[in-house]
Amino acid sequence: MPELLNGRATNGNSNYKETPYSPVLESEYGEYRSLTERMNRRIQSGDPWYSLEFFPPRTANGAVNLVSRIERMSEGGPMFCDITWHPAGDPGNTEKPTSSTCMAATMLNYCGVETMLHITCSNQDEDGLKRNLQKAKDIGLKNLLALRGDPPDGGDTWKKQEEGLNYATDLVKVIRREHGDHFTICVAGYPTGHPESTSYGDDLRHLKEKVDAGADFIITQLFFKPETFFQFLRDCREIGITCPIIPGVLPIQAYQSLRHIVKLSRLEVPKEILDTIEPIKDNDEAIRNFGVEQCFQMCRELLKHEDVHGVHFYTLNREVATIEILRRLGMWVEEPCKPLPWKQTANYVRCKEDVRPIFWRSRPKSYIHRTSNWDEFPNGRWGNSSAASFGDLTDYYLFYLKHKTPKEDLLKMWGEELNSEQDVWDVFHCYISGCPNTKEVKVCSMPWNDEELSPETNLIKEQLEAINKRGVLTINSQPNVNGAPSSDSKVGWGSPNGYIYQKAYLEFFTTKENGIALKKILKNYPQVNYHIVNKNGEEDTNCDLTTPIAVTWGVFPGKEIIQPTVVDPIAFKTWKDEAFELWKHPWGNLYPEGSQSRKIIDHIFDSYYLVNLVDNDFPKDSCLWRIVEQMLEAGRQTSSVEEMDVNGQ
Amino acid sequence: MPELLNGRATNGNSNYKETPYSPVLESEYGEYRSLTERMNRRIQSGDPWYSLEFFPPRTANGAVNLVSRIERMSEGGPMFCDITWHPAGDPGNTEKPTSSTCMAATMLNYCGVETMLHITCSNQDEDGLKRNLQKAKDIGLKNLLALRGDPPDGGDTWKKQEEGLNYATDLVKVIRREHGDHFTICVAGYPTGHPESTSYGDDLRHLKEKVDAGADFIITQLFFKPETFFQFLRDCREIGITCPIIPGVLPIQAYQSLRHIVKLSRLEVPKEILDTIEPIKDNDEAIRNFGVEQCFQMCRELLKHEDVHGVHFYTLNREVATIEILRRLGMWVEEPCKPLPWKQTANYVRCKEDVRPIFWRSRPKSYIHRTSNWDEFPNGRWGNSSAASFGDLTDYYLFYLKHKTPKEDLLKMWGEELNSEQDVWDVFHCYISGCPNTKEVKVCSMPWNDEELSPETNLIKEQLEAINKRGVLTINSQPNVNGAPSSDSKVGWGSPNGYIYQKAYLEFFTTKENGIALKKILKNYPQVNYHIVNKNGEEDTNCDLTTPIAVTWGVFPGKEIIQPTVVDPIAFKTWKDEAFELWKHPWGNLYPEGSQSRKIIDHIFDSYYLVNLVDNDFPKDSCLWRIVEQMLEAGRQTSSVEEMDVNGQ
Repeated sequence: MPELLNGRATNGNSNYKETPYSPVLESEYGEYRSLTERMNRRIQSGDPWYSLEFFPPRTANGAVNLVSRIERMSEGGPMFCDITWHPAGDPGNTEKPTSSTCMAATMLNYCGVETMLHITCSNQDEDGLKRNLQKAKDIGLKNLLALRGDPPDGGDTWKKQEEGLNYATDLVKVIRREHGDHFTICVAGYPTGHPESTSYGDDLRHLKEKVDAGADFIITQLFFKPETFFQFLRDCREIGITCPIIPGVLPIQAYQSLRHIVKLSRLEVPKEILDTIEPIKDNDEAIRNFGVEQCFQMCRELLKHEDVHGVHFYTLNREVATIEILRRLGMWVEEPCKPLPWKQTANYVRCKEDVRPIFWRSRPKSYIHRTSNWDEFPNGRWGNSSAASFGDLTDYYLFYLKHKTPKEDLLKMWGEELNSEQDVWDVFHCYISGCPNTKEVKVCSMPWNDEELSPETNLIKEQLEAINKRGVLTINSQPNVNGAPSSDSKVGWGSPNGYIYQKAYLEFFTTKENGIALKKILKNYPQVNYHIVNKNGEEDTNCDLTTPIAVTWGVFPGKEIIQPTVVDPIAFKTWKDEAFELWKHPWGNLYPEGSQSRKIIDHIFDSYYLVNLVDNDFPKDSCLWRIVEQMLEAGRQTSSVEEMDVNGQ
Repeated sequence: MPELLNGRATNGNSNYKETPYSPVLESEYGEYRSLTERMNRRIQSGDPWYSLEFFPPRTANGAVNLVSRIERMSEGGPMFCDITWHPAGDPGNTEKPTSSTCMAATMLNYCGVETMLHITCSNQDEDGLKRNLQKAKDIGLKNLLALRGDPPDGGDTWKKQEEGLNYATDLVKVIRREHGDHFTICVAGYPTGHPESTSYGDDLRHLKEKVDAGADFIITQLFFKPETFFQFLRDCREIGITCPIIPGVLPIQAYQSLRHIVKLSRLEVPKEILDTIEPIKDNDEAIRNFGVEQCFQMCRELLKHEDVHGVHFYTLNREVATIEILRRLGMWVEEPCKPLPWKQTANYVRCKEDVRPIFWRSRPKSYIHRTSNWDEFPNGRWGNSSAASFGDLTDYYLFYLKHKTPKEDLLKMWGEELNSEQDVWDVFHCYISGCPNTKEVKVCSMPWNDEELSPETNLIKEQLEAINKRGVLTINSQPNVNGAPSSDSKVGWGSPNGYIYQKAYLEFFTTKENGIALKKILKNYPQVNYHIVNKNGEEDTNCDLTTPIAVTWGVFPGKEIIQPTVVDPIAFKTWKDEAFELWKHPWGNLYPEGSQSRKIIDHIFDSYYLVNLVDNDFPKDSCLWRIVEQMLEAGRQTSSVEEMDVNGQ
């Protein structure tokens, strides 16, 4: 009955579009809800969830790719993602891209996904465990999966660790003893029995012990038939296990990996599956198609059961099969809900955060990093938070940004050789327009953008294209919006039936001549707030130096006004340094010292102005384009002499 | 040159209307600025101010009248108002209507005017002074005028107080020593010499001592010719007094009072003035006209001087002459600036307050009183402030509310005898419509309103009239507003060139039958948030119980969004008790126990519902009238039986 499933899922995950108009809504942010609480709410509303499991990558490049994958998959609305504990990979290291804890921190804080970290007994005594628990807490984690883990020496059977911990139950006890209710704790259930356990019955009793020691819910080891799970579920309930028991499922994706997994887990693959895939074992596509169909059918069966409230996917760090199964189940959220115009972190410490300066909009990870030491985050007002100090830029280069694009690719995008400022302007133009550059390479990223252009930039794309080509190098912008529905596909966010507003905003680098001309022109536009600043901090502004300006806000049924984005004069001083620095690193540094290319970038760094403009008159057509046009006109007249100088360099 | 003066004043006090569009404005609230700082800003901008002096009334009724007068006069934009120290009137008593300190507290907190309290040496030793200073600080005062005062025994010359203080200089020293910079201190200057001083020169030296001891500015004793002041000003500057020196002026209002004042102050009235008024001394109107003209001419002369930045008026607690002079000078602010839709207090502790629940809109003094013990006031968000506890209603009846309307007048307005609920409904109808009642008396106040109907009520007056007559007893309402200019005369507030928004709000008492019908009807209006509650707290609502709803907000150039009014479910519980209680006191208690009138009010108190409705869809026509119409229709059908019961009582 796929209709039924689709019906359930539609009433659930994507209910933002489908439920009737109602001003009574649970708040989407502002209050931290534990995973247990969120599960209970979904159980009560009959709205099944899914979760996704990943393992730490072997290399830093692998980590970069995994982070991107998790970001993409988090769009589909998983209840949480979990990352396995890899004892050989220095798992407690918070700085090493390939470590479990570092990956968990990244998922939580930068991908913005509710995260669960596995933690095992392997290779650690109680003191080591305590240190790792503290690290997990420090990075903001609230969920752990407590496992005994694989035998520490890589052997086939567990050898008792004399100084160490030997049972998941001990782990659960230590976590509860040391950290009370801080963590939601998950434990593993084995529907076909743990490979090393003496009997299925003993195994169930161990599971009961883990729950009694303080575990909140159970995820099962993978299995291949729904009946296996149903029998296990009955047996668990029989002996008094009452917490949620979530089936773990594996979409079969390749013959070899299946072999490997069943060997590791010492599982038996049912004969009918083996019979089906043996003949097609060399046809990857056929295997994958089979895997999707088999897993989809099993999930459908599982979710019909009244005591099954979610499904856990062993993704093997792959996305295609899992997403396809979720789509067919109707559980993949096609239009993710955006509680705010920017993506929040999933860190409980920041759950009330709902205001940020607009400057970092295209570099949210830099912003999260630079504010990660704050004790409190602005809620409702930016206000005095502006006095909080931003962390250093220098220690910002997180592994997955540093490794994101290799130097040679950057050179292909931004120019192997620059001959004039116009060459630089053309790079900006290509980025905005999406047109390939003269080497037929698409410019898909810029130093000022962590991510792709936001869809709302399309609303003003033509204007941006035209001015970038002429040396108005835009790095951030938004059109004015006067009461668009909160469901609007480009500018919408927040709960349904709200209204969205924006003041037009434009931020760009431009030549000294343009900057000087602009100062004069702005005298005729008192409705515009502006900052014009060069790298030395010589600044012209008409803003009150301590007053933030709201540039994005929303009005919703049954709520206070939300104003998630502001232009704050104090934060701008910090941003300005970061924005100028990005000319040198990563761009200028691509070229040898003394080269003409390097000189051109240095000249821009030294002489250009960074400008931001806010048109306060949001209900009217924005005057910002007219201002820029007048600036270009006036700048051109004064720059002809200057231009010769630059060419003469 | 009245043109010049008018020009200056227009650029100053009323610049909200006249200056060109500019997003750079000093913030109107949020930051406390000391009187000294505000004076300096006005001096720098060349924008002269005025201040108004009052003395404590002799009777409680006089106090009630004075409070009303100060409220009216504060509308004209004085820099501050001051109240003299009346040693015989228990001046440090904070609860006695006729005491100086109580009056200062009322001016500051309830009239919302920057207040200066005089304080003198008369009848007090240093300990007594310290206690009075602490009281002044506790009620929120920031400004004192330190004077030696009149001789303690009412005699003609000051007799040295052995245990006490004998010089204003000592006062200034004690204030500075005990309270540092907490207070702005003003001292008195005597342009014709202090009556008891040995010489004009000695007097100037004493003044210099007072300034050196820590006084911030000087107000002069009254005088009759500008030259007197100019000479004094020169002499002060000569001996090194650099602080602002403000001329104190007296509009002559009656022959006898002038005689009395000059006798007290031992001043000499110039012959040309005496020659003019002696012949008209029995013609009050002629004297007043002369006084206005003479004072106006003198102020005009004074304000031409580059070192005169303000004028201080000895009002003698009268308003007509002073206001006329200020109007002629162009200094009276005709359209007072409203930083927020409700009037703020002038208490520095509350300077950041910019959010209040809508419920107390017509009873702001009750709200101020019930929140006067709060340490922090909501700014930007109502948020968690809702957890703060409200003070008791029982100790709220401030003198000037208690005495405001005598019982016999209340009976005339609200009915000497009530024969049915319809009689009560008609009282509400008369209040809203402005029509006199059956006894030809205008109903100009109701228990739920401290003040007159707000002008924006006129926008929905017809609808309100119609429904009150039919038993929908409205006590608070506002129309929806979708981006009106902030200068709008009815709904505007805040700095210029902003946009104002409101969600339609309606709050009323109505019969049990109507309330029950309404609950059903509201199922069809999901865009409406509601509370329906009876006196026992039996409540029906579709609101999130911890989430406030913004119902008034504004968007301004260069600022964050301001949302000064919310509907908060938690505060509503407190308000509901106050609102129900107001049926009994003051209304029901007007009638003898057991009387039919009393029974009718009791019946309403016992059985009616208090309802509030918020239409979240502010850009569309409000649906609230349709809802009320449907309620009345449905309520009528079910109430015919019930009605017989009531009549049978």
